[in-house]
Amino acid sequence: MAAKFLPATTLRLTPFSSLRFLSFFPSSYPLFSPLRRPISEGFPANARRRCFCTAVTESAGSGEGKKVDNSYENRFGSRVGEFRRKLKIADVKGGADQGLGRVGQSLSIMGWVRTLRSQSSVTFIEVDSLIPVYLPPINDGSCLSNLQCVMNPEAEGYDQVESGSVLTGASISVQGTIVASQGTKQKVELKVEKIIVVRPLLLLLLDLLELKVILSLTLILYQVGKCDSSYPIQKKRVSREFLRTKAHLRPRTNTFGAVARVRNALAYATHKFFQESGFVWVASPIITASDCEGAGEQFCVTTLIPSSHETTDSSIDAIPKRKGGLVDWSQDFFGKPAYLTVSGQLNGETYATALSDVYTFGPTFRAENSNTSRHLAEFWMIEPELAFADLNDDMACATAYLQYVVKYVLDNCKEDMEFFDTWIEKGIIHRLSEVVEKEFLQLGYTDAIELLLKANKKFEYPVKWGLDLQSEHERYITEEAFGGRPVIIRDYPKEIKAFYMRENDDGKTVAAMDMLVPRIGELIGGSQREERLEVLEARLDELKLDKESYWWYLDLRRYGSVPHAGFGLGFERLVQFATGIDNIRDVIPFPRSPGSADF
Amino acid sequence: MAAKFLPATTLRLTPFSSLRFLSFFPSSYPLFSPLRRPISEGFPANARRRCFCTAVTESAGSGEGKKVDNSYENRFGSRVGEFRRKLKIADVKGGADQGLGRVGQSLSIMGWVRTLRSQSSVTFIEVDSLIPVYLPPINDGSCLSNLQCVMNPEAEGYDQVESGSVLTGASISVQGTIVASQGTKQKVELKVEKIIVVRPLLLLLLDLLELKVILSLTLILYQVGKCDSSYPIQKKRVSREFLRTKAHLRPRTNTFGAVARVRNALAYATHKFFQESGFVWVASPIITASDCEGAGEQFCVTTLIPSSHETTDSSIDAIPKRKGGLVDWSQDFFGKPAYLTVSGQLNGETYATALSDVYTFGPTFRAENSNTSRHLAEFWMIEPELAFADLNDDMACATAYLQYVVKYVLDNCKEDMEFFDTWIEKGIIHRLSEVVEKEFLQLGYTDAIELLLKANKKFEYPVKWGLDLQSEHERYITEEAFGGRPVIIRDYPKEIKAFYMRENDDGKTVAAMDMLVPRIGELIGGSQREERLEVLEARLDELKLDKESYWWYLDLRRYGSVPHAGFGLGFERLVQFATGIDNIRDVIPFPRSPGSADF
Repeated sequence: MAAKFLPATTLRLTPFSSLRFLSFFPSSYPLFSPLRRPISEGFPANARRRCFCTAVTESAGSGEGKKVDNSYENRFGSRVGEFRRKLKIADVKGGADQGLGRVGQSLSIMGWVRTLRSQSSVTFIEVDSLIPVYLPPINDGSCLSNLQCVMNPEAEGYDQVESGSVLTGASISVQGTIVASQGTKQKVELKVEKIIVVRPLLLLLLDLLELKVILSLTLILYQVGKCDSSYPIQKKRVSREFLRTKAHLRPRTNTFGAVARVRNALAYATHKFFQESGFVWVASPIITASDCEGAGEQFCVTTLIPSSHETTDSSIDAIPKRKGGLVDWSQDFFGKPAYLTVSGQLNGETYATALSDVYTFGPTFRAENSNTSRHLAEFWMIEPELAFADLNDDMACATAYLQYVVKYVLDNCKEDMEFFDTWIEKGIIHRLSEVVEKEFLQLGYTDAIELLLKANKKFEYPVKWGLDLQSEHERYITEEAFGGRPVIIRDYPKEIKAFYMRENDDGKTVAAMDMLVPRIGELIGGSQREERLEVLEARLDELKLDKESYWWYLDLRRYGSVPHAGFGLGFERLVQFATGIDNIRDVIPFPRSPGSADF
Repeated sequence: MAAKFLPATTLRLTPFSSLRFLSFFPSSYPLFSPLRRPISEGFPANARRRCFCTAVTESAGSGEGKKVDNSYENRFGSRVGEFRRKLKIADVKGGADQGLGRVGQSLSIMGWVRTLRSQSSVTFIEVDSLIPVYLPPINDGSCLSNLQCVMNPEAEGYDQVESGSVLTGASISVQGTIVASQGTKQKVELKVEKIIVVRPLLLLLLDLLELKVILSLTLILYQVGKCDSSYPIQKKRVSREFLRTKAHLRPRTNTFGAVARVRNALAYATHKFFQESGFVWVASPIITASDCEGAGEQFCVTTLIPSSHETTDSSIDAIPKRKGGLVDWSQDFFGKPAYLTVSGQLNGETYATALSDVYTFGPTFRAENSNTSRHLAEFWMIEPELAFADLNDDMACATAYLQYVVKYVLDNCKEDMEFFDTWIEKGIIHRLSEVVEKEFLQLGYTDAIELLLKANKKFEYPVKWGLDLQSEHERYITEEAFGGRPVIIRDYPKEIKAFYMRENDDGKTVAAMDMLVPRIGELIGGSQREERLEVLEARLDELKLDKESYWWYLDLRRYGSVPHAGFGLGFERLVQFATGIDNIRDVIPFPRSPGSADF
C-alpha cells in the first residue's frame, strides 16, 4: 500500500504512522506545474509545523501535517520538513529523576527488543486479557538501560506479540504513556497503547545455523522463534575475541555500546576543552611525502600496483620501472613515494606559529608488525600545539585537558561508567575521580631514575641514567610510588628523545615530558620544541639528518619564531584509560592490525 | 642566564618575565629527597595559585609563584601548574563593545608584528621622547584584526624599537594598559609599558635572497632590516597559487588565517549540532580491505614495496612474488590488498543500527587523476546516519544541519566573514543569511527534468529523464530557477545511483536526494538505505555485485533491520560555500592532488 505523498510527514516524528514503514513513497507524481510560482503562495503559515514527538496527544490532536492542501504541496518545489531531535530512551530515563517527571506523558519510542533479564517480575507470560503483560524491554542505543514496557492484551498490535513477532533483536515502535514502575530496577515504565513491529525477524529463521554467531558479552542475545527464556545461548558469554570478527554487530552489546558512547563523550569533550580554551582545530595531512618525524615504519600509499576488487592478480610486470629494475616513483600518483602520516605535530607547528594555539584530532598510522593488545596500525591522535609556551605550560595544559575530559565522562556517562565499574574494572569510577580531584605531580627524569634505583623492587629491564623508562618502570612510579596519582616525568636525556625537543641548559637533557597514569603507563607525551634555528640545525647535523628535507620546518624558526610546546595523546589509549577495557582493539570500532583490515 | 627552576612559573602566563624566553630551564637539579613524602606536606594551600594573565597588576602584586618555598618545590614530585586560557586579541577586542569594557585594564599580549597599513595616523616615526609613537600593530591569529599599540619612548624596551628589532613578522610580547583609541578604525588600543622582542628577526637577514617568497594576499608581508614603509614587496599581492607552495607560512596571511578560523568554526559547529541532536560520533576506518561502495579509484596501502626516506631506489625484484609473476598479497601487512577509504557510510550504518543516530567526521580519499579546483585526493567527510528515519527525515536533518553551521559561522566569525565579503565574494554574508532564514525547497527529479526542459536556456549537457544532472543544471536550478535558494532534488532514477539506495514503489526511482546550493552545486548527497534484505540482494544480483563480499552489510538487514537514512557532505566544499574561496586547495591546510603531497 502506497501512502499518500506528504513531503513533510516524517517517519521518525509522526507517532501514529505505521504501515508507512514499509512503503511510504509516492507511486505517482503530480503533474508538472508552472515555474516560478511564488514560493509563499498558498502555504498556510504553519501548515508544516507539527509538534515534537514527545507530545503525541498534541500532535495527534492537530494533525496538520495530513490536512494540508495537497494542491500546493504537490506542485513545483515544496518545502523541506522541520528537523526535530528524536526522543530517545536516554531522554526519557536519563534525567536526575530517572523519568518520574514524565509520568503521564504520551510518547513514542523506537528501538530494538532486548532479551529478558532473569527477573521473576518481568516475564513474558500468556495471561488473561485483563492483566497487563510485560514485554521484553526495548533499547535504542542511546543509553545502557532499556525501557521496560507493559502492555494490556487489548491494546493495538497485541496480536503481533501473540504471534511471536516481538523477538529479541527485532526493531519495534511502541507508543504509550509513561507510568511509575512497580519494579525496583527502574522508576518508570511505558504502558504500551500500540506496538508496531518495524521489521519482523522472520528472516532470522533462515540463519538459524549461523546463530551461534550472535552477540553479546552479557545479556543481549538474539533469539529465534518463540520468546523462550530457557533458550540455551541466551546467557552464554561470547568472548571479545570472537566479537572482533563481528565488528559490525558488536556495538549492539552492552559492553561495546557503552564503549561507543564513552568514546564519543571523550571526543566531544576534547573538542569542547580546546575550543573553550581558544584553540583552533587543524586538519593535519594524512598522506605525506615528507617524513620529518622519521618515527618508525610507515605505510606506502600508491597507485603503482595494479589491483582491483574483482581480482587480486596483480602482475609485477605492470609496475612502472626505470633503469636498474627500480620502481619508477615519478609515475606514482604523487610523483614520489608517499606515506600515511605517523604524526601531525610538525604540521601543527606551522599553524601554531600563525594562530597561536591549535590542535589536531585525526587518524595516524604505524606499520609495525606487532600483534599486541597495546598496538593498532590505525589510531586517532590528539596533538595540541601552544605558541608562546614552555614545558610548564605544556604540562599544565595536558593536566587540565585530562581532568576535563575525565570529568566530562564521569558527569555525562554515569550509567555506562557504573557498568564498567561492575563488569570490567572494579573501582574505575574511584580511580577516575581521583584523577579529576588530585593534583598531578611532576618529577625530573633524573629524580625518577633515583627513585627507581632506590625502589625495593626487581625490574626486568635495567634502570640507569640515559636509558628510556620501560612500561614496568612507568607503572611502578604512578601505581606504587605515587599510589595511583598521575605523574609527569620531565627533562629526559636528549639521546632518547626526538630531534625537535628543546635542549635544556645542562646540554644533556631536553624539555620533554611524559604523563604516566595507572594501568596504562604513558598516556601523553610532549615537549617544548626547539625554537632556536642554530640549535636545531646543529642537532640535525649531529643526528646526520638531511636539513634540506626539513626546509619548511626550519622556516618556522627563521620567521617570527616563538617558544612553543605541545603534546600528543593516543585517543584509543585514553578510551582504555576511561573504560578499563584491556585490549586496544576493543575501543575502536574497526581495529586494524597485521592481517586484519576487514569491514 | 639560567633562571631559577620554578616548576609552576609558566612562560605564557607570567607577564613580567622576559629573559626566561631564551633560557628558563634549570642548570642543576636539587638533591634527591626521600620517597613517599606525603604530597600535601608543606605545600601552602595556594602557593601555586596565581591570577589569570588578564590581571597583570594582581599577578605582579602577589607574585606568589616566585616566593614559594623551594625546599619543598625542589623535592621529590612537585605539583603541576594550573592551566589558564591565554588572553588573546580576540578576547580583548572581540566583544560587542569592541574592547571598551577593558579600558584601564593592564594586560599582556603575545603575537607577531604585522605590517603597517598605509594610514597616515598610524605611522612609525622617530620623534621627540615625550610624544607617544605608534608601533606596528600586533596579531596573534585569534582574529583578523590587529592590536594597535602606542608606546611612550620612555617605556621599557623602547631601545629595541629604536634598534630596529620590532620588524614585521617578529614575535613580541607587549604589556600595557588598554586605552580608548584616537583612531576611527578601532575602539581601543594598548598603551605599551613594556615591550619584549621574543625572537628578533636577525636571522631573516640570512635569507634576504629568499625573501620574495614570503607571504600574503593583501597586507601582511615580512620585511627585513629597518621597518621601511616603502619596502617594495610590502603591498604586492602574492598569488594564491604561489602561496600553496608555502603552505607552512600561508596561515599567517589575512585570507588563510580567516579560512582557518572559519573552517574551525564549521567543524566545531558540526560536532555541536550532532551532539546536541543525540548523535554519536563514530570513527569509520581509514584503511579498508573491503570496498563495498566501489566508488571510483582507490589508493593502495601497502608495505610490499621496499622504500625509505634515505633513497627512492626501490628494487622491483624485492617485491614478494607468487607464481606467474603476480604480487604476493599474502605477504602484505594486512594479508591482502588494502585501500584508503572512499566513504565511511557503510561502516556508519553498522553503528546506526545499534545506537540509533551516528555521524562520522574523518578523512576520505580519491585517487582520481583530476587536477581541478574542485577535487582533492584527500578530503574530510561528514556522514550522518539516522535509524528509524526515511528520506524526509534525512532532508530535514541535512537542512537543519546546514542552517545551524552557517548560522554558527555568521554569529561567531563576524570579522572574518566581513573580510570575505569585502575581499573574496561580495555579498557572501547576504547569501549565507538567506540560507539560514529561508526555508529550503524539495523537488522530485522528474519535476527537475521538466523544469530544465522548459528552461529558456541552452545547456552544454543533454537534459533527459534517466541522465544525471550536471553542475550547470544544478546551478541553474538553485541560482536561477529558485533565485539563490537551496533546493533538494529527490527520487532519482535508480540506474544513476548507488546500489544501497532504497527503491521507491514506482520501481524506477530510489529515495535519493541531492542538496544544491548556489555557487557550489551539489553540497550534500544522501538517501534512504534499502533495509529490505530481499530487495537489496536482488539489486546486488542485478548489478552483478558479489554478495559474499557484502556479507556484513547484508547482516544489518538480517538482524533487526530498520528503515534508515543518511547523507554525506564534503567538508571542504562546505568551507568553500561559507568563505567564497574558489579553489578547494585553499580551504584545507595541506592539499593533496596529483603530483603534490609536500609538507
